[in-house]
Amino acid sequence: MSSGAQIVERCRELAGVSEDAGRLTRRYATPAMARANAIVGSWMREAGMTVRMDAAGNLVGRRPGTSALAGTLLVGSHLDTVRDAGAFDGPLGVITAIALVQRLREEGVALPFALDVLGFADEEGLRFGTAYLGSRAVAGTFEPGLLDVVDDDGVSVRAALRSFGGDPANVPGASGSASRRGDALLGYVEVHMEQGPVLEERGAPVGVVTGIAGATRAEVRFTGLAGHAGTVPMALRRDAAPAVAELVLACEAAGRETDGLLATVGRLSVLPGAPNVVPGGAVAFLDVRHADDAVRGRAVDALRARAEAIAAARGLELAWDVRLDNPAVAVDDALTSRLAAAAGSLSLPDVRLASGAGHDGVALSALCPIAMLFVRCAGGLSHNPAEAVAPEDAEVALDVLAAFVRGLAVAR
Amino acid sequence: MSSGAQIVERCRELAGVSEDAGRLTRRYATPAMARANAIVGSWMREAGMTVRMDAAGNLVGRRPGTSALAGTLLVGSHLDTVRDAGAFDGPLGVITAIALVQRLREEGVALPFALDVLGFADEEGLRFGTAYLGSRAVAGTFEPGLLDVVDDDGVSVRAALRSFGGDPANVPGASGSASRRGDALLGYVEVHMEQGPVLEERGAPVGVVTGIAGATRAEVRFTGLAGHAGTVPMALRRDAAPAVAELVLACEAAGRETDGLLATVGRLSVLPGAPNVVPGGAVAFLDVRHADDAVRGRAVDALRARAEAIAAARGLELAWDVRLDNPAVAVDDALTSRLAAAAGSLSLPDVRLASGAGHDGVALSALCPIAMLFVRCAGGLSHNPAEAVAPEDAEVALDVLAAFVRGLAVAR
Repeated sequence: MSSGAQIVERCRELAGVSEDAGRLTRRYATPAMARANAIVGSWMREAGMTVRMDAAGNLVGRRPGTSALAGTLLVGSHLDTVRDAGAFDGPLGVITAIALVQRLREEGVALPFALDVLGFADEEGLRFGTAYLGSRAVAGTFEPGLLDVVDDDGVSVRAALRSFGGDPANVPGASGSASRRGDALLGYVEVHMEQGPVLEERGAPVGVVTGIAGATRAEVRFTGLAGHAGTVPMALRRDAAPAVAELVLACEAAGRETDGLLATVGRLSVLPGAPNVVPGGAVAFLDVRHADDAVRGRAVDALRARAEAIAAARGLELAWDVRLDNPAVAVDDALTSRLAAAAGSLSLPDVRLASGAGHDGVALSALCPIAMLFVRCAGGLSHNPAEAVAPEDAEVALDVLAAFVRGLAVAR
Repeated sequence: MSSGAQIVERCRELAGVSEDAGRLTRRYATPAMARANAIVGSWMREAGMTVRMDAAGNLVGRRPGTSALAGTLLVGSHLDTVRDAGAFDGPLGVITAIALVQRLREEGVALPFALDVLGFADEEGLRFGTAYLGSRAVAGTFEPGLLDVVDDDGVSVRAALRSFGGDPANVPGASGSASRRGDALLGYVEVHMEQGPVLEERGAPVGVVTGIAGATRAEVRFTGLAGHAGTVPMALRRDAAPAVAELVLACEAAGRETDGLLATVGRLSVLPGAPNVVPGGAVAFLDVRHADDAVRGRAVDALRARAEAIAAARGLELAWDVRLDNPAVAVDDALTSRLAAAAGSLSLPDVRLASGAGHDGVALSALCPIAMLFVRCAGGLSHNPAEAVAPEDAEVALDVLAAFVRGLAVAR
């Protein structure tokens, strides 16, 4: 079996490890995650790594380097999932990293630096509604208050982690036992499925991530006057539906006109919502993302000005509430160039793309330089049981990762 | 007290007769309606009328004419209400008709024809979801199957009517005992609050109705492809939200460009409706009304073609389901001219307007010529406890109605 085929097969096997019957759901610090850690840990050992679970429940496999002074390269992704998930979002990166270690061993490659393969325990945030619990612990940015957050059953992070075999008291802060703060780290490199259609569209198996986009989410509400759809003349209406429609189109136009800007209205409703009533209210949720915070800020400002103009022209009230404002996260130029060079050495097309979704690297960027490699997925589908990555593409990602660590070893 | 003040006062008094505490709800064949019929019946008797309830539960007050050959003029409106209703939608017309009979008596006016004041028992259709139960019985168009329709508690029209003291077996068809088919009828004239802002806008207390608009209601569904708001580039999206937004604006534009056309999107939603998901689906409910069925048909066809073009341009699927297609109802030219002449004789501005909402006249138009007079209401508000009609405007409506019946008497 090719390495790519084995990676995909292992992702599929791991997808059977779930809290729910008939669908994949694997939340932070659950028995399902413990079983997943056991399986992935066995693959790590098989590849020659020593394996431990850190205080926050992250799985850590270690391949020592030949020089104690050369430091450690972190490679990995997450092992938790969304509800009714696919097999590749997260596990692909962990399993590819294990395949890298396995290949290095098979090929007898010695590296000066150590490789730590990380299987983060909470990237999706499904259980506690607060993402990156695992990678924040590793980055040393886990805040003590997070231990008190409770899940839908009233179980706290602290209690969940304790039953999971973690050590909650030693998780928070830079001095927590899971924290790698102060270690000699070369960086963090993550392989992840793209979760979008760009690579498929460009016919490229992998692409190098140029940054993780910042995001603004705003709830926008127009208030006019409800009325009878059969009795209020068009000219006398203060209808909120066409107002919100204009904003939806302005949002789309902004996204189309500005390179790299993603602008989405994902929720939309009108009030009171009766077929024969002119809507007196309308609510839209805007989601605006760009790798450059300044570009995103200008786009959000322009959309807000547009919403105000729409409201003024139609005699409506406008409420604009920002619900989320996450800055962009930069990838490290040097590591990213090396990743691109590794891809180039394999004669792959040089495809660069921003990540619109967040990843563990967002948390780890506070700790060390980060870089990411995206892998093509079928139809851009993700957070969906139909997620698919081709074995050939997984093999290419592994090849790039292998060329990358070899390059890094030569450079040092 | 002026007649107008008494009309408004009686409407307010009747608004206290409700099924619900603290708000006005009066459905077909309920104890609340029986109490309303008792009160309104007492006002009819006070005005000199004989009073009966017909087999369908309608209240009928009769003032005989001086000539047995001169036939009968029907005047009235409905006594049922929507949930959390205002005081005037319906009762205004019944109480104004009683005030007319009272005035004729006070002034010693003899009319050759009889006046029947009708208080219809079901115009809104709140209890059984099927409007005009009362007026259809009078028109002789009540279908036998309607007796089997049940309310939310599983009570049939038949059972409800029997406990109400009606005679369900004698309701259906042209030969039903409530049917006026075969009677010598001069027509049906109804006074009703406008339920819209046109008369207020024009500064006119009353307006003559030119027709009752036909209505098309369609459920329109665009289907594209859902995706991650952070990962699917704008150019690769098949987003249903901007598609439905374009349709909402096309709908508004159609209404603005075509004289007398009302086009509304009263319900609107996108699917799955998560803030960070590009909508893969969108549903809009269109409501299109015009007094001329041909104009309405062309407008609906044009909107459908527009929706198809939007879907095609965006690579989406379109489903267009017509949920309702009610033809327009014409008012009688001769009666309507007499109504306008009556208003003119009082030096009122000649305001004509179509009714966008349905009324008992829709059912009665199958029986006899119909005409309607609209009365100005505050802010166009209706189906709302804040409904308001000024005493002065109610007085004007009564004056017009009185001039109308005098004119009709002279003409015969």
